[in-house]
Amino acid sequence: MTSAGRPDHWPADPATGLAGGVDGPDLVRRLAAVALDAAAAGARDRAGPVPAGGPDAVARAVRAACPDVLPEDGTGAEAALTAVARALAAGAADPADPLCAAHLHAPPLAVAAAADLTASTLNPSMDSWDQAPAASELERLVTAAVAGMAYPDRPSADAVVTTGATESNMVALLLARERAAAPVRLVCSDEAHHSMPRAAWLLGLPTPVTVPTRDGRLHPDDLAAALDRTPGPYVVTATAGTTSRGVVDPLPAIAEVAAAYDAHLHVDAAYGGGALFSDTRRGLLAGLDRADTVALDLHKLGWQPLAAGLLAVADGTLLAPLSLRADYLNADDDTGAGLPDLLGRSFRTSRRPDAVKIATTFLALGRAGLGRLTDRCCAAAEDAAAQIDRRPGLRLLSRPELSTVLFRPVAADRAGDEAGDELVAGIRRSLLASGRAVLGRATVRGTLGGGRLWLKLTLLNPHVTAADLTRLLDLVEQTADQLARAPRRAAGGTSTPE
Amino acid sequence: MTSAGRPDHWPADPATGLAGGVDGPDLVRRLAAVALDAAAAGARDRAGPVPAGGPDAVARAVRAACPDVLPEDGTGAEAALTAVARALAAGAADPADPLCAAHLHAPPLAVAAAADLTASTLNPSMDSWDQAPAASELERLVTAAVAGMAYPDRPSADAVVTTGATESNMVALLLARERAAAPVRLVCSDEAHHSMPRAAWLLGLPTPVTVPTRDGRLHPDDLAAALDRTPGPYVVTATAGTTSRGVVDPLPAIAEVAAAYDAHLHVDAAYGGGALFSDTRRGLLAGLDRADTVALDLHKLGWQPLAAGLLAVADGTLLAPLSLRADYLNADDDTGAGLPDLLGRSFRTSRRPDAVKIATTFLALGRAGLGRLTDRCCAAAEDAAAQIDRRPGLRLLSRPELSTVLFRPVAADRAGDEAGDELVAGIRRSLLASGRAVLGRATVRGTLGGGRLWLKLTLLNPHVTAADLTRLLDLVEQTADQLARAPRRAAGGTSTPE
Repeated sequence: MTSAGRPDHWPADPATGLAGGVDGPDLVRRLAAVALDAAAAGARDRAGPVPAGGPDAVARAVRAACPDVLPEDGTGAEAALTAVARALAAGAADPADPLCAAHLHAPPLAVAAAADLTASTLNPSMDSWDQAPAASELERLVTAAVAGMAYPDRPSADAVVTTGATESNMVALLLARERAAAPVRLVCSDEAHHSMPRAAWLLGLPTPVTVPTRDGRLHPDDLAAALDRTPGPYVVTATAGTTSRGVVDPLPAIAEVAAAYDAHLHVDAAYGGGALFSDTRRGLLAGLDRADTVALDLHKLGWQPLAAGLLAVADGTLLAPLSLRADYLNADDDTGAGLPDLLGRSFRTSRRPDAVKIATTFLALGRAGLGRLTDRCCAAAEDAAAQIDRRPGLRLLSRPELSTVLFRPVAADRAGDEAGDELVAGIRRSLLASGRAVLGRATVRGTLGGGRLWLKLTLLNPHVTAADLTRLLDLVEQTADQLARAPRRAAGGTSTPE
Repeated sequence: MTSAGRPDHWPADPATGLAGGVDGPDLVRRLAAVALDAAAAGARDRAGPVPAGGPDAVARAVRAACPDVLPEDGTGAEAALTAVARALAAGAADPADPLCAAHLHAPPLAVAAAADLTASTLNPSMDSWDQAPAASELERLVTAAVAGMAYPDRPSADAVVTTGATESNMVALLLARERAAAPVRLVCSDEAHHSMPRAAWLLGLPTPVTVPTRDGRLHPDDLAAALDRTPGPYVVTATAGTTSRGVVDPLPAIAEVAAAYDAHLHVDAAYGGGALFSDTRRGLLAGLDRADTVALDLHKLGWQPLAAGLLAVADGTLLAPLSLRADYLNADDDTGAGLPDLLGRSFRTSRRPDAVKIATTFLALGRAGLGRLTDRCCAAAEDAAAQIDRRPGLRLLSRPELSTVLFRPVAADRAGDEAGDELVAGIRRSLLASGRAVLGRATVRGTLGGGRLWLKLTLLNPHVTAADLTRLLDLVEQTADQLARAPRRAAGGTSTPE
């Protein structure tokens, strides 16, 4: 940056310039352009969904770009942005690439990323009104809208913003713990997310009861039998969109059982919650509004940059245990004088205003626009399933319910249990190590899954095409053939195949 | 946006365009420019550190910009970005304004905000290597550098990234809980952050023991006496930079006591940790490396957009309780084949790569550059204290140790206890409601503080000038005079004074 091209108000050293104020946005725009240029160059370097060469090669490249991350003297803003952004992009598993389809790892919308930048420049902190006047009102609008989607007929519903379903699940358990007269016990299925039992451990609750699923779903009879065997009080968790199979537990029937046993019902809808946007898929979540608490993640079907978690509650009074007084943030006399008290909206204190990007995305796309994106992801999964069904070399587990597709090369079935699993794991690692595709994996219990390892596509990219999916499945079949011919390599490492 | 000006690769509807890939950065650049223009316009609308009119006026303005945050049909990307970013900025308490000086609410550096944008576009999620290849290595470099600063002589030290000191404090207590043979009891001072006892409650630990401070500091004799009265095991917490007074507990002496009682020593250095960057202030933290765990917040003295928390540990093996297996993220055979296991680095699962902005800032400024920013904030506090000392109408509590300055109008002393506190609270609310300044408040125990309410400046803006501080203190004195003449308004509401 030459001094000739620098406006008067710029700091002598752009590395020390602030993002806020009247002039900050101009400096941020210039530095963001440097970073985005470097990110685009890094994406061209990568030339695929993920860098080739595996962990050692990526680590070497990052250390080469950044040999001393905290030097005594700095390199200046532009050199640092260029080095880090290019290394980050060159070494990214980019969910915007259609062949990056392993996880509940959504490609963010550009509009959401741009909106989040304004949150960074002004840095509202959501722990007191005098750090976040407008941001706190935006959050109120967003949480009210989300509560209204999850609980359309409950005016008392509310929602709070979290870092994701792990925090939402933990806070839901905390609220259940605090309303119960005795230590509350978590009862969940063996397909519930690991954050549920982990939250019980964190909160010092009794050992959870795990109910085996029937082909991926919690059966209400099995739940009732487990509750019969266990002393209460309970918090029952159902999952709307399981991590491994993307299926929705039978919510209305589970709600009946939970009510009969006077259990707090929590639904982890981190994945499936995106169906609320869609006219054609909302029916999958029938019964959701009978839950006491619902975890939602708009960084999944919602296309936000991390983090954009929410916990919706059927009745706002459930949130009372989060209330807290801290003289410096919400003194009684300030609250009495009309200053809103934000401290009871989170377990965190300083808190990034994630509602800014969510509000902007909601406004830009509307409910119908977001629903169309959900529908496109679900349609891509249906298309992938149909393509798999048409290929004699691949076997589909079951029709997708949301946007998760599980399948297996027929060669893995033929190879026997252990060798078949090794082949599946080897296909995934080979595609990952060579930078050609990022696929997921899941051990699938039950009659269909046979307890074996399956390949998993989690399709969260609304722009993925049938041709992309064909290319991806071709790669899987080619790799299966290669590895089946060279069985020693099936369980191989993550370095690039020679 | 006219179609004539749109590159071929842009989506027909920019609201549905992705941030990643080779082409995403170009769309993000264009949309970020729209958002930043709107943010600059909003800052001009605001024309001060905070909007005038109080909560009702701000809420009305936000709702006018955003009458339906989740409409059926969207408004498109540019209209949404303009509406939200302008309302956010017009209604911000902007820490880049020198007269916004209430809280540990730092003005972010433009370079950090720009770097964070690249994290948003690529969305690495820090729960598995195949979602964050380069980002996980960048995080490794950052955590190693931070562990090295906190524990210069301990090669076994490590650090993990958190959402802030509230999470760091909670995880520290969790680690102490898991290494203890019996329920561990928190022993902390009455100036410890509220997140310490809150974490004990969350984790199901016994009721904490609170030790009264002597003029804001935990005295080692008082700590020893409290430990004598209490059955162990203990986790002792000291604070390096208290929220209300910005002072550092006597760490070496506290470390002696903690060692004598075999207590886990945690130091909450969320604020004071910034002194590690500074050659002239590092001595304040002597003894820090005797702690088992240290909470640090680079969104305070570190000038990062939220969030940029860290928990440093003296020995990496302390982190073992965070370890977790989840077949879809870190299967044994994948880890065996060389894929790094990231899941044990956090209680969260999906996790934003906050290390990206930290790494970029470290590289841009270097340790010395960050130290100069810390020094400037501390020097501003010394200057403010000197100016207060020279004003007969104001009384300084004590010389600042970091960048917090507590003072009181002499008129408040003269008005008597209750009326004096009302005057202090009224000055703060009047300046806030009229949009002229954002000051903090603290009830100060001890001989100096007298248990009364004081005005607080927390100076985290390295560009604040002596003239800014003069203007701020003039405003305080003028407002004190006005309110002292019209005592009814001293405890008044937050609407704009007529």
